Amino acid sequence: MTITLDEIKTVDEAPAEKAMKKTIIVFSGEMDRVLAAFVLANAAAAMDDEVTMFFTFWGLNVLRKDHPPHPRKTLLQKMFGRMMPRGPEHLTLSHLNFAGMGPVLMKKAMRDAHVLSLQDLIDSAREQGVKFIACTMSMDVMGIKAEELVDGVEFAGAAAYLGEADEANVNLFI
Amino acid sequence: MTITLDEIKTVDEAPAEKAMKKTIIVFSGEMDRVLAAFVLANAAAAMDDEVTMFFTFWGLNVLRKDHPPHPRKTLLQKMFGRMMPRGPEHLTLSHLNFAGMGPVLMKKAMRDAHVLSLQDLIDSAREQGVKFIACTMSMDVMGIKAEELVDGVEFAGAAAYLGEADEANVNLFI
Amino acid sequence: MTITLDEIKTVDEAPAEKAMKKTIIVFSGEMDRVLAAFVLANAAAAMDDEVTMFFTFWGLNVLRKDHPPHPRKTLLQKMFGRMMPRGPEHLTLSHLNFAGMGPVLMKKAMRDAHVLSLQDLIDSAREQGVKFIACTMSMDVMGIKAEELVDGVEFAGAAAYLGEADEANVNLFI
Repeated sequence: MTITLDEIKTVDEAPAEKAMKKTIIVFSGEMDRVLAAFVLANAAAAMDDEVTMFFTFWGLNVLRKDHPPHPRKTLLQKMFGRMMPRGPEHLTLSHLNFAGMGPVLMKKAMRDAHVLSLQDLIDSAREQGVKFIACTMSMDVMGIKAEELVDGVEFAGAAAYLGEADEANVNLFI
Repeated sequence: MTITLDEIKTVDEAPAEKAMKKTIIVFSGEMDRVLAAFVLANAAAAMDDEVTMFFTFWGLNVLRKDHPPHPRKTLLQKMFGRMMPRGPEHLTLSHLNFAGMGPVLMKKAMRDAHVLSLQDLIDSAREQGVKFIACTMSMDVMGIKAEELVDGVEFAGAAAYLGEADEANVNLFI
Repeated sequence: MTITLDEIKTVDEAPAEKAMKKTIIVFSGEMDRVLAAFVLANAAAAMDDEVTMFFTFWGLNVLRKDHPPHPRKTLLQKMFGRMMPRGPEHLTLSHLNFAGMGPVLMKKAMRDAHVLSLQDLIDSAREQGVKFIACTMSMDVMGIKAEELVDGVEFAGAAAYLGEADEANVNLFI
């Protein structure tokens, strides 16, 4: 069977079309880095890209409920739980934190510049269908239980992340 | 129309040739991370890759003039402006900073090892045609005005970055 | 010569199969970030991906022997050498470090969660054939000599990293 040039073009273009997926590993729990992650996730989703965010280590704190239930934990897990921020309102800055004044000023500067707050960006990402995956290994180590995280989060490990990354054309570690 | 194997090879190899573009998000304003970004950018440009660097958040400080004009700012914008370093000579280290002694020692160690200084690496990147984009959203939040940044910088947002990243085969967040 | 559709498919699929390589730049020497790098490297290797880890700046400390020989160094190189941690057992945490208590607690939490230690993850990565490259430019700047690093490490610069990244479909900077 001989084929036409048009048929070849179709075959060639198919991978490019499928590759418009993005993954972001949210490792850091610092407000500024988390903001960058969600600005990128929202921008990509607005361009109709599929987006998967994989929350691991300190990044898990973004997904923590402000007033979670109290699951059974070891003493060490309780310590980690208490020392880490619960949810986007409590994150600190990587620079100029000044014992908590930095985030307050950053939030005001964002309002002044008419930029969405982190919570708004998170809500917008979810509305746009961005997939949130919580890293189960980090949860085990830090003693974070599924019921302490906000609803609508999937639970998976590094292999699942790699599966998503293999389908994506942009993969960032933040 | 039938085609030859040679014609198909040309079609197949074209995407690979086009994909030799790199993007680097310079989020951090720490001297060591910025150095890594510019070493990679220069190396890629030397290999004839197209390179786009997207400066956002603290990374914008790399592009600030040492003696900028004084545009009108709110009190909060003035605070951010004063507390953040102006240009590559004033960046701090992420480790071993020792209240500013670390960067001095690092610069000396770089000279001893015959490694280009950060300023030289920046100049070399520009000479090699590396594209610098300043993130307009971060500029708005931090109150950094276009005239405070060095010449030859483009201004754009996250969507523009994603457009560049879609054309690249290596995308790093530093 | 005319060709068949089957032949074209073979040509098209080849790049996708070859692209299952991953690169990770280990820039940070913080225990938590290094852990994330090795968890991902091990997971990718377990999925039969080729993995290259490029250790640069503080990340080089991961590869340092605990009791190295004493090569000739300048005073500045000796200072850097003494102030930086030697090997995976001595890394600090990026958060909650508490003058060294954080890493101790993190190690205990990892044992409690039946997660491999960093040293085990490093050994496992090597057994799975993960390639370790030490950045020669960083070694020069920090005065780290080849004999101070663990065996089996390759030595190369940014151009070599970019060559590896061009062959990979996921490239992370950690």
